[in-house]
Amino acid sequence: MTKPFFFDRASGLTLGDIASITGAEHRPDIDVSCRIVNIAPLELAGPGDLAYIDNKRYVEALASTNAGACLMAESFEKHAPRTLVVLRTREPYRAFVAVARSLFPDSLRPSSLFEAEGVAAGAFVHSSAKVESGAIIDPGAVIGPRAEIGTRTVIGANAAIGPDVCIGRECTISAGCSITHAVVGDRVIIHPGCRIGQDGFGFLLGARGHQKIPQVGRVIIQDDVEIGAGTTVDRGGIRDTVIGEGTKIDNLVQIGHNVVIGRNCIIVAQTGLSGSVTLEDHVVLAARVGVVQHVTIGEGAHVGSRSTVLRDVPAGARWWGNPAKPVRQSMRELLTLERMAARGSEISSKGAPD
Amino acid sequence: MTKPFFFDRASGLTLGDIASITGAEHRPDIDVSCRIVNIAPLELAGPGDLAYIDNKRYVEALASTNAGACLMAESFEKHAPRTLVVLRTREPYRAFVAVARSLFPDSLRPSSLFEAEGVAAGAFVHSSAKVESGAIIDPGAVIGPRAEIGTRTVIGANAAIGPDVCIGRECTISAGCSITHAVVGDRVIIHPGCRIGQDGFGFLLGARGHQKIPQVGRVIIQDDVEIGAGTTVDRGGIRDTVIGEGTKIDNLVQIGHNVVIGRNCIIVAQTGLSGSVTLEDHVVLAARVGVVQHVTIGEGAHVGSRSTVLRDVPAGARWWGNPAKPVRQSMRELLTLERMAARGSEISSKGAPD
Amino acid sequence: MTKPFFFDRASGLTLGDIASITGAEHRPDIDVSCRIVNIAPLELAGPGDLAYIDNKRYVEALASTNAGACLMAESFEKHAPRTLVVLRTREPYRAFVAVARSLFPDSLRPSSLFEAEGVAAGAFVHSSAKVESGAIIDPGAVIGPRAEIGTRTVIGANAAIGPDVCIGRECTISAGCSITHAVVGDRVIIHPGCRIGQDGFGFLLGARGHQKIPQVGRVIIQDDVEIGAGTTVDRGGIRDTVIGEGTKIDNLVQIGHNVVIGRNCIIVAQTGLSGSVTLEDHVVLAARVGVVQHVTIGEGAHVGSRSTVLRDVPAGARWWGNPAKPVRQSMRELLTLERMAARGSEISSKGAPD
Repeated sequence: MTKPFFFDRASGLTLGDIASITGAEHRPDIDVSCRIVNIAPLELAGPGDLAYIDNKRYVEALASTNAGACLMAESFEKHAPRTLVVLRTREPYRAFVAVARSLFPDSLRPSSLFEAEGVAAGAFVHSSAKVESGAIIDPGAVIGPRAEIGTRTVIGANAAIGPDVCIGRECTISAGCSITHAVVGDRVIIHPGCRIGQDGFGFLLGARGHQKIPQVGRVIIQDDVEIGAGTTVDRGGIRDTVIGEGTKIDNLVQIGHNVVIGRNCIIVAQTGLSGSVTLEDHVVLAARVGVVQHVTIGEGAHVGSRSTVLRDVPAGARWWGNPAKPVRQSMRELLTLERMAARGSEISSKGAPD
Repeated sequence: MTKPFFFDRASGLTLGDIASITGAEHRPDIDVSCRIVNIAPLELAGPGDLAYIDNKRYVEALASTNAGACLMAESFEKHAPRTLVVLRTREPYRAFVAVARSLFPDSLRPSSLFEAEGVAAGAFVHSSAKVESGAIIDPGAVIGPRAEIGTRTVIGANAAIGPDVCIGRECTISAGCSITHAVVGDRVIIHPGCRIGQDGFGFLLGARGHQKIPQVGRVIIQDDVEIGAGTTVDRGGIRDTVIGEGTKIDNLVQIGHNVVIGRNCIIVAQTGLSGSVTLEDHVVLAARVGVVQHVTIGEGAHVGSRSTVLRDVPAGARWWGNPAKPVRQSMRELLTLERMAARGSEISSKGAPD
Repeated sequence: MTKPFFFDRASGLTLGDIASITGAEHRPDIDVSCRIVNIAPLELAGPGDLAYIDNKRYVEALASTNAGACLMAESFEKHAPRTLVVLRTREPYRAFVAVARSLFPDSLRPSSLFEAEGVAAGAFVHSSAKVESGAIIDPGAVIGPRAEIGTRTVIGANAAIGPDVCIGRECTISAGCSITHAVVGDRVIIHPGCRIGQDGFGFLLGARGHQKIPQVGRVIIQDDVEIGAGTTVDRGGIRDTVIGEGTKIDNLVQIGHNVVIGRNCIIVAQTGLSGSVTLEDHVVLAARVGVVQHVTIGEGAHVGSRSTVLRDVPAGARWWGNPAKPVRQSMRELLTLERMAARGSEISSKGAPD
């Protein structure tokens, strides 16, 4: 990558450091004091960069790489250029990530985009709000009455935090977010432009107009949750909307009122959960999944991309399709239709059968 | 629910008040001066809470509830604990909502998240803008030249209102919204992060680049409209984009240029209307529906979730599917495919037929 | 359209100006000094308005229009009212757009919503940022350390620009956007509420919690790109996310990390590109398309609305469906299913066959 580079790398890591972080093995004759200052894919890497390979598709890139060092399983070594420092490990990608985390500690959570400290000039903090010492409030952020912000938490530029909202420690609430009617744990990351805690969508329908149903629940976001840009989380109507510990949510996801999400779930971009959906722990929803109201998705279930879930999914199941069914059944239906359409077109190209 | 609680409940309502709001009947020997201070689902309710039941699924929760009082139809009474105050009514949920609206008048529209009055310090109001007395402008809000804001309207923190935009009375424009090229009626609620009035997506395509088509229409939002968080409404190209009186729109919906939406429509989350779509009055679009350009959906039609509407839908119709068709036809096609795939797999598990 | 009108029209154009802009022909006896001050559809147009017709569907509107002048092909002339000034041209819509661009030069890119000049009061520009003279920074905008903003660029109200971000000349970054870790070319338009440059969605999954993978790439946005409201573009993980010159993206689109988009592509609303997708030049993705990881879509390919692309699409192809296939094949499958379901229901209404 060319300049500018957006992360500080301090002075990098030595090959010795990397070997010790990853447990990777290397030939005894390399210079372990050599420094690696960046990470890069094989085809873009230069002498100061660490790369990795874990797929045969990239063997040619390996053979011609200019990387300084490369993490790989033993089976790839024969393809490496002779000058490349080979770091042998069974899980090259996992090792690569460990090095990246060590090289770029600043990348592990978004920081103040004004490089502010404390409450910046231009932030609007209500006199009754409690901002712990060590918290950072960027310019243009608005903190409402009686809100509480924990130490080392960053509230980004032009974010808005409503009355009585409680945000824990070491969180980042990024630029332009709004959070109301919510309680947020520690080490939570909320990316820019999220909307947390507004009214759920509830009306008594009527021919002469729809009557708004009060939404008096809250949003509870537990520790170590991460929420992607532009995602919306409505507060509960009569109970709370809950996002469980360690769950990671991607961009532009919609979470309806009263939804309860368990621990360590993964919800990929543009997915939508209707009101009162329950996700048990470790559920994975791929991109663009829709789940209708009151459905429960069991522990550890995976739902494939763009599925529509109309009924409960058993724990551990692998579902896909529209409507979602066990993957094997959905695949069979697709293939059946494909085969029949092909046969039909053969017949019609031969002339109609009698 | 545990603390904190985000809505004021004043001193609650007596059982007598509730009976008179709802018309519910009760045994003559209850103490009508007892106070209800909150609403809750049966299984979470305590002695100060009102609950309701309208579905047999919750009969066990009713039998063991600690609620102070519960709205129900006569047929459920035999399952109620002896100590529970039973409020008999034919429409328990409708009655419950009426009580909730009365208990929590503050929940009926979002208020200033800074609890501001008038133009807050830190708001940027152009000297030529007209802000009626009684309007509230939160910190960080920006009001452009010649814009007009009606009395009792709240402009949320860090919202931006463009030149000449006209906003009526008793509206809430929530935190972080932007509104340009628009005329907004009275009692309109726009939730956080909505984008109203920006250019529609119009280009003359060309092999050497695409030429921008001027978008010189407006957005007209009529009285009593509600728009969910993160929704985008583009202004018209050559005519206006119109959202009719009383229509309610959920989160992350996309409304293209020149769309005309009638009165009292319901549009659920993540739906998208392409340019020049027309929705007549009382149309309901469930979640994640897509409608292609120039289509008209007739009065009172309902379109099921995740449908793609490729042609006009007649008034009063119930359509669903991808592409959308009458529900019965879509269902028949799904079942046909399911049956054929099942039969095919039977055959192949028995060995191929001759 | 009624007042207020949001664009300046100066004094309009004469019929002579319009003939010379478009090359349209007219009868010799018209008064070429007559002024046109606005554009309108046939049925709404008045004497000062220019209209156009290019579709037989609007012949009745033409016959009764009050427009001052109308662009049309020769074949429509017989339907025009006798008093209407007919401007004959082979490409009426293209001519109409040319006139609109000339009448409304202000509509070609969004301007400051505060009608500000230079750095407005209430903008927060870090002391180390470089704002070229001629740039406009609206109230509430936040410009981080060492960021660079080119001349004639507008940074909208409450937008936030991160450290070291470089934005070229004559761009508009609209209200409420956030941009970090990005390099932006010239003449780029970013509509309100876009989220550019935040972390991509990358985790090493684990039963006891997911580990964040550093995202240390950038977002590169080339010249003449336009991005719709509420769209999110994640920065690269290990390489850059790139949006090529002249590409136009609609509202609420999700662009994942490491995505590379070529030149002059069109991406319609609510589409989502997963990580490491490649779009070659001139690709068109209709509304609500989803593309899974690592897929490449070849030069000039078109993908129809709401398709899910699971594998590479050849250059020039027309694909559609879920999963996406050549349009002809998808259509055949739909028709096959429709026919079979109809036959099945005939059979069952006659009684089961033996």
